[in-house]
Amino acid sequence: MSPYPGVVAQGPLPIVGVLGGTGPQGNGLALRWAAAGLPVVIGSRDAGRAMKAAGELAQRAGLGADVVAGTDNAGCAARADIVLVAVPWDGHDRLLASLREPLAGKIVVDCVNPLGFDERGPYPLEIAEGSAAQRAAALLPDSRVIAAFHHVSAVMLADLSIIQVECDVLVLGDDRAAVDQVRALADVIPGMRGVYGGRLRNAGQVEALTANLIAVNRRYRTHASIRITGLRTSEAD
Amino acid sequence: MSPYPGVVAQGPLPIVGVLGGTGPQGNGLALRWAAAGLPVVIGSRDAGRAMKAAGELAQRAGLGADVVAGTDNAGCAARADIVLVAVPWDGHDRLLASLREPLAGKIVVDCVNPLGFDERGPYPLEIAEGSAAQRAAALLPDSRVIAAFHHVSAVMLADLSIIQVECDVLVLGDDRAAVDQVRALADVIPGMRGVYGGRLRNAGQVEALTANLIAVNRRYRTHASIRITGLRTSEAD
Repeated sequence: MSPYPGVVAQGPLPIVGVLGGTGPQGNGLALRWAAAGLPVVIGSRDAGRAMKAAGELAQRAGLGADVVAGTDNAGCAARADIVLVAVPWDGHDRLLASLREPLAGKIVVDCVNPLGFDERGPYPLEIAEGSAAQRAAALLPDSRVIAAFHHVSAVMLADLSIIQVECDVLVLGDDRAAVDQVRALADVIPGMRGVYGGRLRNAGQVEALTANLIAVNRRYRTHASIRITGLRTSEAD
Repeated sequence: MSPYPGVVAQGPLPIVGVLGGTGPQGNGLALRWAAAGLPVVIGSRDAGRAMKAAGELAQRAGLGADVVAGTDNAGCAARADIVLVAVPWDGHDRLLASLREPLAGKIVVDCVNPLGFDERGPYPLEIAEGSAAQRAAALLPDSRVIAAFHHVSAVMLADLSIIQVECDVLVLGDDRAAVDQVRALADVIPGMRGVYGGRLRNAGQVEALTANLIAVNRRYRTHASIRITGLRTSEAD
């Protein structure tokens, strides 16, 4: 069972921080988590932008303007219990290296897809550690790094007329309790399921699969994601 | 539209060869293609084993004993129009290098997943070219190499009581006509859809994702595959 499937009835809820929460992916997930009743802190390089985004997000989620907080990335890392890393790959390493202390002991969820683009479209970048998530684990030796939320369409997340966000979130990590907490972060979003997807060393191909989904999106003019077949819902819950 | 969705009414059908057709993955796909009415040639290192497997497969598919052919891999490559490579990664390069001539000009479908296993489970092997499929393309410069059928459960394929094999087959390649013919090979199997999944250079992560599906299988005691969300069936057909 998820630690907070019903959200409201579960007592003290973890504060979810979103580094890069003004970008489309981070903002979309923050919106859905806030709408599900989780306390959310938006982080951004610029605290003012983060506060503005937090206010807009609270309004869109139908919450009081002060329910979602916004601050700079360091403040977000310090305040949150679980921290999503949703920054562009370019700034990923520098940001995480600067946040080693405030992120110590916390669950850090990396959803970054290191891709290059050329005239033939997207392709995965080579990462010495194997994946962005493993790079994060190397930069944050005192954190519990999990990889998840790679294939969630920012467009679908932002569109609240889409009630069910139909996709399965592969959650990867070597710390089972942390994996289960992150799976629960997927489970609170209607339509989404968190599914254990293997150890962190198998995160590279999950990140890189985003290049294939972009190819699908272009060919079929859609916002594709994935479902895992062969699971009963109760098993993935 | 698939070139042979109805199979029977479409005139001359391509002969589908399966290199390694006595192994579980190749045999399972051969069974489903034969059952769908496609002419199938099983290839194996040992022609005798291939003939025996072909006879068993025809019987299981409810066909005449001589409808499915069996021969050695070289004979299979020579006789077939579209050739599936379903051999273990260990023997992949040697076999393909030996078949460059009979495979020239043909569509070669690589479904091989180069994985290693240790005490922590499966992990993707590093391939200099990026993937088994790209290695195949390097070894077979005169063939039209396509990557597909990586995530199809051999257990599900072999169990004919499972009418609908619920999964989407990502089909990757740089030759659009060849991609479409291979997508059609997925479409003829009930429940399965062939979905364009990008250029061949994006095959590595699709092959490697099999490690994640093995992790899913172990955790949830299932035979997992994937579906792509956001596609209407008519778009993928």
